[in-house]
Amino acid sequence: MSNNNNNICKRLKKEELYKAKWIALNQLTFSDPNGKERLWETVDRTTRVGEVDGVDIIALVTKEDQKKYIVLTVQYRPPVDAMVIEFPAGLIDQDETAEQAAIRELKEETGYTGERVDSISSILALEPGLSSANAQICTINVMYTFPHPSIAKPKQHLEDGEFIEVIVVPLNNLLDTLQNLTKKYHKCIIDAKVYTFALGMSIKV
Amino acid sequence: MSNNNNNICKRLKKEELYKAKWIALNQLTFSDPNGKERLWETVDRTTRVGEVDGVDIIALVTKEDQKKYIVLTVQYRPPVDAMVIEFPAGLIDQDETAEQAAIRELKEETGYTGERVDSISSILALEPGLSSANAQICTINVMYTFPHPSIAKPKQHLEDGEFIEVIVVPLNNLLDTLQNLTKKYHKCIIDAKVYTFALGMSIKV
Repeated sequence: MSNNNNNICKRLKKEELYKAKWIALNQLTFSDPNGKERLWETVDRTTRVGEVDGVDIIALVTKEDQKKYIVLTVQYRPPVDAMVIEFPAGLIDQDETAEQAAIRELKEETGYTGERVDSISSILALEPGLSSANAQICTINVMYTFPHPSIAKPKQHLEDGEFIEVIVVPLNNLLDTLQNLTKKYHKCIIDAKVYTFALGMSIKV
Repeated sequence: MSNNNNNICKRLKKEELYKAKWIALNQLTFSDPNGKERLWETVDRTTRVGEVDGVDIIALVTKEDQKKYIVLTVQYRPPVDAMVIEFPAGLIDQDETAEQAAIRELKEETGYTGERVDSISSILALEPGLSSANAQICTINVMYTFPHPSIAKPKQHLEDGEFIEVIVVPLNNLLDTLQNLTKKYHKCIIDAKVYTFALGMSIKV
């Protein structure tokens, strides 16, 4: 059983193999449940200021048609050399809570604003076989008071080097919508979290 | 617009900063939509044989009570130094399709078997700001023919160094179940894809 000391893995050592500006490559030594020492290579972001790297934001909008929509971003991501459909997201700054980061990043990346975070996850692993990268997922109900979207389009506040397209799509049939969206861009893929969110919505219990 | 050549980012160069056994740290040079050259650090798995690193498996079971369940794994993940609740998953081997990898990994990690993959995603980005890590997500309806779970518990076929606990939980109220499960283990977190799947299930359109 997992609460039995004999079945708990323990980290014993962390050695730096290489440190770049944004990413460090480290080798871990840990003991397995049989007490045997094992090695694992891992990647850490060098930018983490607290326990968590960043936030992903599930921003929901109810428009004047009373239907629910979700705010997503599309941007070129160098690591995958493709446009990626993602939740708005960002790293948590110094002296900032995850909730504050979520409201700030949503505003900066998309122009949409929320008064508060409606729900926040515990710390989640993003790719736990490869890296320590983690995040908290916040849901925000966007304040939608524009008389008409074509008149008052929310204004992004992007940093130098950020080129982010904002899309607002209906929650209904999100999985199909995502698959159709990838065809509209040159080399476009979906972030796995967005996909599993849409897949979860499509499951009937 | 994204199909305008002036707004397409292009990868220009990939330089190796450090190569370990399982992970390589590379620096990318790309041109932004204004034609300006920019740098990005990224991580690649050295194990990829085709276009995709691995598969995640959403394995659904209908038990004799006619209720739907999902098969999840719990294991210690050295990069996050915690137990992580995940979908069964694994890397795609040489000469193997994603579908074959999904059926094989489900059997090896959990003992549960499926005849076929019922749906497979396109290639999805796992952490596209940090790494090229990608996956395809397969859904498999598990063949559940055991007379009684306590009599015929599926048998895992784990590799040396794999210590994976299998849990089968109801799809109904999955988000609450996950949050309660984390309390049952010493230092336990949820994989972000599992969380967004459960969150999607909880959303009413």
